[in-house]
Amino acid sequence: MNYTFSDKISGLKPSAIREILKFTSGSDVIPFAAGNPSPEAFPLEDVQKISQRIFSEKPVAALQYGISEGYEPLRRRVSEYMRQKHGIGADSDSIIITSGAQQVMDLAAKVLCNEGDTIICENPSFIGSLNCFRAYGCKLSGVDVEADGMNIQQLENALKTGKNVRFIYTIPNFQNPSGATMSLEKRRAVYELAKKYGVLIVEDNPYGDLRVTGEHIEAIKSFDTEDIVIYAGSFSKILSPGLRVGYAIAPAEIAAKMTVGKQGEDVHTPVFNQMLVDEWMATCDFEGHIEKIRGIYRTRLSLMCDLIESELGDFVEYVRPEGGLFVWCKLPDSVDMPEFCKRAVENKVAVVPGVAFMPDQNAKSSCIRLNFSTPSPENIEKGMEILAQVSKTF
Amino acid sequence: MNYTFSDKISGLKPSAIREILKFTSGSDVIPFAAGNPSPEAFPLEDVQKISQRIFSEKPVAALQYGISEGYEPLRRRVSEYMRQKHGIGADSDSIIITSGAQQVMDLAAKVLCNEGDTIICENPSFIGSLNCFRAYGCKLSGVDVEADGMNIQQLENALKTGKNVRFIYTIPNFQNPSGATMSLEKRRAVYELAKKYGVLIVEDNPYGDLRVTGEHIEAIKSFDTEDIVIYAGSFSKILSPGLRVGYAIAPAEIAAKMTVGKQGEDVHTPVFNQMLVDEWMATCDFEGHIEKIRGIYRTRLSLMCDLIESELGDFVEYVRPEGGLFVWCKLPDSVDMPEFCKRAVENKVAVVPGVAFMPDQNAKSSCIRLNFSTPSPENIEKGMEILAQVSKTF
Repeated sequence: MNYTFSDKISGLKPSAIREILKFTSGSDVIPFAAGNPSPEAFPLEDVQKISQRIFSEKPVAALQYGISEGYEPLRRRVSEYMRQKHGIGADSDSIIITSGAQQVMDLAAKVLCNEGDTIICENPSFIGSLNCFRAYGCKLSGVDVEADGMNIQQLENALKTGKNVRFIYTIPNFQNPSGATMSLEKRRAVYELAKKYGVLIVEDNPYGDLRVTGEHIEAIKSFDTEDIVIYAGSFSKILSPGLRVGYAIAPAEIAAKMTVGKQGEDVHTPVFNQMLVDEWMATCDFEGHIEKIRGIYRTRLSLMCDLIESELGDFVEYVRPEGGLFVWCKLPDSVDMPEFCKRAVENKVAVVPGVAFMPDQNAKSSCIRLNFSTPSPENIEKGMEILAQVSKTF
Repeated sequence: MNYTFSDKISGLKPSAIREILKFTSGSDVIPFAAGNPSPEAFPLEDVQKISQRIFSEKPVAALQYGISEGYEPLRRRVSEYMRQKHGIGADSDSIIITSGAQQVMDLAAKVLCNEGDTIICENPSFIGSLNCFRAYGCKLSGVDVEADGMNIQQLENALKTGKNVRFIYTIPNFQNPSGATMSLEKRRAVYELAKKYGVLIVEDNPYGDLRVTGEHIEAIKSFDTEDIVIYAGSFSKILSPGLRVGYAIAPAEIAAKMTVGKQGEDVHTPVFNQMLVDEWMATCDFEGHIEKIRGIYRTRLSLMCDLIESELGDFVEYVRPEGGLFVWCKLPDSVDMPEFCKRAVENKVAVVPGVAFMPDQNAKSSCIRLNFSTPSPENIEKGMEILAQVSKTF
């Protein structure tokens, strides 16, 4: 049979990254293409203890159906924590627990966008979100990311000229893939423009806790007096991505629609997984654990960036990120990008070509994204040396 | 701000059942409205042992990112088992692990349907799937369910006259909510019609293992020589719904598109949850456990049906199901249905009004759905007595 697929899905390609990872994971290739937390960053003992406790004390609740909004104690705990610690969330907001933060983007697109509507996003941006929006038939309007975040003039232009713009999608902290962090001034400017043009903001903050240098900058959601920001949070980078637990803090009316959307997708996020996160926050030194992770990534980020400067200084341009998981490097325009990535992987280093992160699928990019959380320090050294060798062949 | 929601989501109401459950769960209301496995049906000791083993032997793999298709050992195990045991799956098929079987319906609609396309479904049918299809802007064309499954003439008519029919959605075993099981003849007829009209079939089989009387009937997927059937399986009713692990066995090209869709929704189903299911199948007497569950439900189904006959015989019409979780009762046409359900819950018995299961949201129904897996035998007796009392007030 010749299958006919929906218009929205038929042009969609599998994530380049996930495809690269499928063929390189477990092999001897150095994984600069990944986005995985370091294996050292998992609180293994805590998880062992908590899971044992849950399955001996509350096994039936952990295995039974839950409600779509999420496990009540976790909802309460995260909302109180985010409010007290970061000023995120108001009485007019509601929280829902999602199957990873990815599902927040999915549900936002589902409840807010008709096919053909426009989402403004950063250029470059996280491929998982871009593909998710494409899978709802949305048009993507890209706004360049500068060292301090979105180009505000381009943003206003996109808001003015875009057709049925439904929301602005941004990753303000240690953006994936650019590594850029949006300044407070720009956060305020983005918010004012959203207000002015009557569009929503989806603020995706998976890496917020992974700052290794510089000063914390408050979230856009923390000054959301107009109830126009959907905030996406995640436990993937501080506890475990494999558990798939994230959350949305959003205006209550929007959260209610997202809950209806979630019922039809996966009914609810697994209860055991939510209980585990809840107990971790309740009974473990999770802020101490986050500090520990920061220490691990501080070392690796410095190491990678120092090596970029010493080994590839003449070949690449880059901005040293203040946290997150990625470094974004611009190669000379003359370099044949597919060939560069091919030679890198032939020499046992996997990198992601920048083209994967373009909102415009026909755009070109002379950048690569390098991840420093997955490879060990030894492999960062080895991999950067290999990339330096490869660069000399161009 | 006045929010504008997508056309596809704005008419959608939260699942009546999940709303009823939210307000009655944990209370002293007898839960005939639920669809939860009996707490006695969870293999608690197995789960305790396995989870401890996973978190002590493979903790990093359990917490790390996985691939979207699913955990390889589980994919292999389920596909071999379904092939050997049920003749389900061919070389041209591929398996993906999903976040509950609900996600199979979601991904099928996402990859196959444009807004406005038609899905043929049973009338009545599972509200979770109907709402999921509505959330993709699909039109639902209902075909009446008879004691032996879909009305075949109506089905052919729907196929002839429907506009852009993309697939037939059916629950052949112990259908939710009707309890009806489709005969082998009708399964073959549905398959032949799908072939004739060039449409796909989504065969949803969450209750297949819960047969308590009569003979097993082979799945439509088992005679799918044309690669037109997407089979949805689930561990929710035999192991745990809270873990959210299901799967699709589908023609490889469709499964590949569903995988791309899944990447944008939740990246992958939690790895620990998949490992747990895999180890359960590998190391425990899971077929023995299914037999045990059958025993529990056999007793409750008989008890409920006997009481319907003795206590409500003059009031309701029904067909005794051969398995599953539900009994579907037709009340006299003269009964004011919302009032009946209201009086039932006031007297501490929650039931689901049949109207929740209609593909046509404006249709009426004089039926109620009763669940016998969640309440204890004592509560089944108590609840049926109350319903008998309530029926006398009409």
